[in-house]
Amino acid sequence: MNRNPLEMQAIVNGTILTLDDRWTSYDCGMVIVAGTTIREVGPFDQVRLDRLGIPKEHIIDADGGIIIPGLVNTHTHIGMSLFRGIADDTANRLKRVIFPLERKLTTPEVVYTASLHSLAEMILGGTTCFADMYYFATQTARAAQESGIRGIIGQSVATYGGPDAPDFPTSVELVHRLDNLLKGNDRVMAAIAPHAPYSLTKQELLQCAEIHANRDIRILSHLAEMPFEESYTDEHYHMRPIPFYHQCNLLGPKSTMAHCIFADGNDQRLLVDTGTGIAHNPSANSKSGKGIAPAYDLMAKGARLGLGTDGPMSGNTMDMVNILGITAKFQKVLKKDPTIMTPREVLRAATRGGAEALHLEKSIGTLECGKQADIVIVGTDSPAMFPLYDPYAAIVYAASPADIDMTMVDGKLLMYQRKLYTLDPQAIRIQAKGMVSHIHKEMHELL
Amino acid sequence: MNRNPLEMQAIVNGTILTLDDRWTSYDCGMVIVAGTTIREVGPFDQVRLDRLGIPKEHIIDADGGIIIPGLVNTHTHIGMSLFRGIADDTANRLKRVIFPLERKLTTPEVVYTASLHSLAEMILGGTTCFADMYYFATQTARAAQESGIRGIIGQSVATYGGPDAPDFPTSVELVHRLDNLLKGNDRVMAAIAPHAPYSLTKQELLQCAEIHANRDIRILSHLAEMPFEESYTDEHYHMRPIPFYHQCNLLGPKSTMAHCIFADGNDQRLLVDTGTGIAHNPSANSKSGKGIAPAYDLMAKGARLGLGTDGPMSGNTMDMVNILGITAKFQKVLKKDPTIMTPREVLRAATRGGAEALHLEKSIGTLECGKQADIVIVGTDSPAMFPLYDPYAAIVYAASPADIDMTMVDGKLLMYQRKLYTLDPQAIRIQAKGMVSHIHKEMHELL
Repeated sequence: MNRNPLEMQAIVNGTILTLDDRWTSYDCGMVIVAGTTIREVGPFDQVRLDRLGIPKEHIIDADGGIIIPGLVNTHTHIGMSLFRGIADDTANRLKRVIFPLERKLTTPEVVYTASLHSLAEMILGGTTCFADMYYFATQTARAAQESGIRGIIGQSVATYGGPDAPDFPTSVELVHRLDNLLKGNDRVMAAIAPHAPYSLTKQELLQCAEIHANRDIRILSHLAEMPFEESYTDEHYHMRPIPFYHQCNLLGPKSTMAHCIFADGNDQRLLVDTGTGIAHNPSANSKSGKGIAPAYDLMAKGARLGLGTDGPMSGNTMDMVNILGITAKFQKVLKKDPTIMTPREVLRAATRGGAEALHLEKSIGTLECGKQADIVIVGTDSPAMFPLYDPYAAIVYAASPADIDMTMVDGKLLMYQRKLYTLDPQAIRIQAKGMVSHIHKEMHELL
Repeated sequence: MNRNPLEMQAIVNGTILTLDDRWTSYDCGMVIVAGTTIREVGPFDQVRLDRLGIPKEHIIDADGGIIIPGLVNTHTHIGMSLFRGIADDTANRLKRVIFPLERKLTTPEVVYTASLHSLAEMILGGTTCFADMYYFATQTARAAQESGIRGIIGQSVATYGGPDAPDFPTSVELVHRLDNLLKGNDRVMAAIAPHAPYSLTKQELLQCAEIHANRDIRILSHLAEMPFEESYTDEHYHMRPIPFYHQCNLLGPKSTMAHCIFADGNDQRLLVDTGTGIAHNPSANSKSGKGIAPAYDLMAKGARLGLGTDGPMSGNTMDMVNILGITAKFQKVLKKDPTIMTPREVLRAATRGGAEALHLEKSIGTLECGKQADIVIVGTDSPAMFPLYDPYAAIVYAASPADIDMTMVDGKLLMYQRKLYTLDPQAIRIQAKGMVSHIHKEMHELL
């Protein structure tokens, strides 16, 4: 099913939600893909289809499904999937469980295998683009390249380094290595990922901003996530976390900040005014009991707000489909208003909003002529997807990841009818099993 | 796959979570079913299996999955599934959308077909028992009987009747008719379902309690759900909704009250002390912006707390699997404590807790010798279900409804390997299509 990059394909016989400025949709539409980009989006037209001379085997029948732009997961740590489910619901989990586990058990092999495993989950769930920050980032980049997905891969840096570096200067070296590896690759891009305001010094954070500017790479970070963060930055810098990051030159039109739970009105304004992308992770943020970011307020103020799963130790799945419903429900109940955060707004945040949060909106995020062909079909066969009075509501409130019927990136089929084309999940699991046994043994000693 | 009721079956090769008093589990276990009940639960033992002489075709291989008691959906309105997705996110939706829609478009045929459609979704999603309250309840009862599921079917009654009755006395007649239909049936049971404190007079509510006592049928109702309910009962009866229901003799050991969002400390105590079952519906309650019930506090006080989806116009799906994660996440974030509402507590609420909420804990809710064989297998093949350090966490935080591999009620296979045995979802959908077209046309005039 892998096409010659110049060949044409057509996706037909589905409800198209373009997510363009006018919310254009087609009840029975077709998308024409030429090479890696979208050439045409419109109502189904057999005459046009015949005229284009697209061979029959290049025509994908959506079978009454809903055709949407691919889902964008704006924040995750896919190299952690082999740790999923360890000591969930533990107090002070980051310091007591996650950091020690990573120090001892995170290796290049674990990150590569865990990344492949998560990528299979993401592609099966309709994610076409993701932003990741973790250690041994070249391994995640390698897995992403093999999978055919689009992504921004951040190398984590911190004062005390991480499992891949003993200190900040060494982790910075890894950023250069990652960026060199990915130079010229426009589907998988490099980022520098300072861990959080509390895990680097101000000087180091300023240095991150310099590397970002000099190498023209993106910034990914955690920000305003931890309940202790406000008092930490107040004590050390006499300001709140978000203005502090601004002072460190870390906000701006190539930055994406994950969480922003503790963002007051001024913080929100600063994020909007600097054009900073925001990754909203309601599943992980609620599971950890931290709180829920003011996503609706941010959106209403014009923020570049996308949705994310967070890592598989935090949100447990890479499932963007369930993030849709959770996003809507948390904002509605926080505001005590059922009319806000509508399915349209939520689906926009998960596609176009994600593209904006990652500063990729010129190339992805909507189904429009000239955009990259990152396209997903949501099937409507399962009982929960019938009737279909409102396709936006059906996707946001009723769909499951297993309803995703097709995932395409750059015009290339990564999954169709639940079959993966670039990854072999059985082989990945066999590869992972030995590592998991080892982790299982070691974790009992650590915890 | 339908067995002679006296025959034996074995479910083998899975992790068993019994949900008994001691949280007994078996890493590789087997469940022996004799007729409709569980005869044995324990570690896998080939010698024992051979000795019992169970024929090969009666042995179900769980294939490394997780074997749990069936999920109990303690509150829904399955006759509404053909209205799903209409005018979601509308203010004052109950009075502006739902009541007019029901008055005009709810017919016996719609309720029967919608019920069958929802039952297919429930059985595919691992639900083995449900409590329902709606109009034309004999139609829902008929669908439930055909499907093989276990259920408590409530006939809705209200001052102004409903689509099936012009007034309260007529709707009471329907309760008698339902109860007569179901007398002697121990899998599908009848209930009287007064709609809510604000939709019946005090005299009518007292009359419901009398019918409940005289006919020995259960009570299902909505309680402390609406933001206006407190001021309504205060104005009319000078008390809060829950004590008012107590005064009407509606709380007690055969009652299940849905929602209880607005339950203060005294209300909670009253629910516990009267042995009233509680149906917690976090997905629907958040989508409608109303609030989240104090589920953790109720549980901690010893309440009979189960989980529910609410109807398909409220929570949009009949999916109990996703209710698990949402239940945990809302309580953790409300209490700002990640250590509460653990996967064990949540899975207990969805199985054994549901049985308690419906006062069926003597016959269902755990995998123990003598209980009815209501059993579910959660598959572990999908990427999100690997690794499996903690099977409770995997089910609550990572499973999807499509991961359910088997649903058995009373020892009878209703679904195995995603194939339904008692219902034909394609035929149901064909049957529903004409009704949906009609509803689609009419709804535009109504809304």
